[in-house]
Amino acid sequence: MPRYALKIEYNGAPFSGWQKQAELPSVQRAIEIALDRLEVGEHQIVAAGRTDAGVHALGQVAHCETTRNWAPFRLQEAVNFHLKPHPVALVDVAQVAEDWHARFSAKERRYMFRIVMRRPPVTHEAGLVWQVKRPLDIERMRAGAAELIGHHDFTTFRSTICQAKSPMKTLDEIRIEEFEGASGPEMRLYVRARSFLHNQVRSIVGTLEKVGVGAWEPEDVAKALAARDRAACGPVSPPHGLYLASVGYPEDPFANSCND
Amino acid sequence: MPRYALKIEYNGAPFSGWQKQAELPSVQRAIEIALDRLEVGEHQIVAAGRTDAGVHALGQVAHCETTRNWAPFRLQEAVNFHLKPHPVALVDVAQVAEDWHARFSAKERRYMFRIVMRRPPVTHEAGLVWQVKRPLDIERMRAGAAELIGHHDFTTFRSTICQAKSPMKTLDEIRIEEFEGASGPEMRLYVRARSFLHNQVRSIVGTLEKVGVGAWEPEDVAKALAARDRAACGPVSPPHGLYLASVGYPEDPFANSCND
Repeated sequence: MPRYALKIEYNGAPFSGWQKQAELPSVQRAIEIALDRLEVGEHQIVAAGRTDAGVHALGQVAHCETTRNWAPFRLQEAVNFHLKPHPVALVDVAQVAEDWHARFSAKERRYMFRIVMRRPPVTHEAGLVWQVKRPLDIERMRAGAAELIGHHDFTTFRSTICQAKSPMKTLDEIRIEEFEGASGPEMRLYVRARSFLHNQVRSIVGTLEKVGVGAWEPEDVAKALAARDRAACGPVSPPHGLYLASVGYPEDPFANSCND
Repeated sequence: MPRYALKIEYNGAPFSGWQKQAELPSVQRAIEIALDRLEVGEHQIVAAGRTDAGVHALGQVAHCETTRNWAPFRLQEAVNFHLKPHPVALVDVAQVAEDWHARFSAKERRYMFRIVMRRPPVTHEAGLVWQVKRPLDIERMRAGAAELIGHHDFTTFRSTICQAKSPMKTLDEIRIEEFEGASGPEMRLYVRARSFLHNQVRSIVGTLEKVGVGAWEPEDVAKALAARDRAACGPVSPPHGLYLASVGYPEDPFANSCND
């Protein structure tokens, strides 16, 4: 059966997360239902990363199989048509080899986290950013973030319900930038690793926010990491500032995009 | 009674427009109700421009009177608290002279219109931009826009229900820029005038879009203007790409902002 890689953008607000759960709205199920409307049979899709309730994606990647042979552009258009009115869209589709796997072939995940710093409630970007009322000191946060780069035991920074066998992960990059955004002064954190533990990014961001407001010293991040104790973590940031930005593969399946 | 200038940001989606209408949710009413919760008496506010249903604002300006003497920052915080969960926020408040008038003192209105050019449905910015599926030619649009600058009879570009006494208006500027936005290639139109006719900006944008896709020639805009006939106008663009960006006054009431 022909296999396709799907690049997916979504607003996580109305969903209980990526993963299918009985009775609950999920991004996965929304796309599977759209595929089921295109051709007979039940479709199942597999994603590179399972995002939590409220977490968004700019470039989630999944794969699906179809019975018919679809031109990628036609498949994209048809699925997008049937996805309405969900805030989910295929932004690219490519045919891939039958052994290509969205999750197991992935070698890198990149997340972005948006923080808006202002007092009046955010209106246009409500649900799309984490609003903090006090300004954050970016240099302190960069110093705190630097303590986390590399291969570590991230027990402190993972959810107690995380199912990964090992808490050892290699964090390749945390880049922090600030600029004047649409809703005011904005900070974006770009985090990159081969893979992440459950709640790892939100645990890191929530901890770095404490450093940014001055409640923690940058060195406290190293101490929290060394503690290997979930209780040593700062507060977990809310999900709605988090975006699965992109997924890296040894060879970009969308290199010859149907949209170029 | 002390008078305050309010700078207001809102997402127009859930409202029937700025102006109060019996039974319908309006931005004006939402703010008046918030003021009524702060102190006894009924509050009435007056805005620089009445935006239509679905139209947003980044910097609408209104004035209100209060019985108590409020520190501007306290008034801002209190109103914002009572505005929840409406997507409306005071982003600045300043005390003004008792004869200062948000509408009559205004000497300039600036609107912004956002167009996103892509085929997959917009997810994160749904309701915040006008999505068009075909790329637009910015140079053609700039040439078409140039035909409208200056003092003209804008009968072609105003709603048939427009209540202005005269269709004569001076359009000072239409600036068009394009860049890679959050949802893809984006075009922003910045339109500036002392005042506008009803639906004037949306009529202009809808007409320029026709020029951008190649259905109209830039010169056709001049012909449509010269016709002084509503039927000669292109389609009116949808409201959700339009933002009242700012209002200009002889002296900026927010020059000594409580937020600086």
